[in-house]
Amino acid sequence: RLRISSGELSELMNVTASQIRQDLNCFGGFGQQGYGYNVKYLYGKISDILGVTKNYRAIIVGTGNLGRALATNAMFENRGVKLTALFDIDPSIVGKRIGGMQVYHISKLSEYCAQNKVDIAVITVPRDSAKETAEHLARLGVKGLWNFTNIEVDLTGTKTKVQNVHLGDYLMTLCYSIGTENDTNAPAQKQDYTDN
Amino acid sequence: RLRISSGELSELMNVTASQIRQDLNCFGGFGQQGYGYNVKYLYGKISDILGVTKNYRAIIVGTGNLGRALATNAMFENRGVKLTALFDIDPSIVGKRIGGMQVYHISKLSEYCAQNKVDIAVITVPRDSAKETAEHLARLGVKGLWNFTNIEVDLTGTKTKVQNVHLGDYLMTLCYSIGTENDTNAPAQKQDYTDN
Repeated sequence: RLRISSGELSELMNVTASQIRQDLNCFGGFGQQGYGYNVKYLYGKISDILGVTKNYRAIIVGTGNLGRALATNAMFENRGVKLTALFDIDPSIVGKRIGGMQVYHISKLSEYCAQNKVDIAVITVPRDSAKETAEHLARLGVKGLWNFTNIEVDLTGTKTKVQNVHLGDYLMTLCYSIGTENDTNAPAQKQDYTDN
Repeated sequence: RLRISSGELSELMNVTASQIRQDLNCFGGFGQQGYGYNVKYLYGKISDILGVTKNYRAIIVGTGNLGRALATNAMFENRGVKLTALFDIDPSIVGKRIGGMQVYHISKLSEYCAQNKVDIAVITVPRDSAKETAEHLARLGVKGLWNFTNIEVDLTGTKTKVQNVHLGDYLMTLCYSIGTENDTNAPAQKQDYTDN
């Protein structure tokens, strides 16, 4: 199909049509009132916005269970991010290949980042090493840090953006929501404040 | 130590003292102006609020890489949630023990939930099975569903609360933040709107 309206996107996404129009307008408004959006153009624009077309390259530092699970997770490839290497300190893992990637000793991190384009570092190291590892990666010029360590990492003053994923906090949020309310979940409100 | 002030908590948590006072007031205000909070009492209250003291029991459905990584993750134990069993359809995994737990075939799910207290189900099944698995667990009376499938699960009309963790979306958010701004991260604003 060639075109799609904000109303049709609304049905697909369970977000109001006016919200979709507002959100897309933030990036420059790619639609024409009454004609909707050109699907191919919209797809390309959203890919650009999300950086899918930028061929970001990523490494995983910490090759424990979670690191290995992420190393073999299709989401990176699906979102245009290429995983290129894994790092760990455990001699029983270093030198092996996981998910088609080499596991290097953490001492090779500086050398690897100097010789290869590394946009994103995913850190799944133990809590005690979180701060040190994050600061080291920021000094090495990594643009984005995806932090799974359950320790809040603060790279204020550096150029490295941080995405903290605190799984333990999400678990607590779920526990809290279970504990507070035992009613049936209310049906989702699907209001459209038609604004044009 | 016996007491702690909102100002001291503020320093520890990088949240403003007034925000801490406001947040705690939502649950009934456990402090005394000028005296701060009784540490032991506050700890107990927060544990109650978060459900840590409720001895929630959880299962993991989907014992692939991510399921196994979660099965051996200390966050459950650290937050008072006891993992009791794993489920999968892969005959090469079913019957094994991982993280001290038995892996059962998914066909045993109904029977297991009937015979054991299961408050929370963590789902790490493939995308295609996400909806069906979630709805099945809701029918079995699971109170909370922690969804790692990258598919939005909607259990409107059931009593099961859902926590969706969309790792792929977080990755996109990070890619977007890298792409938009190349400036040094601004220092965190630490404003305290003193309100008492």
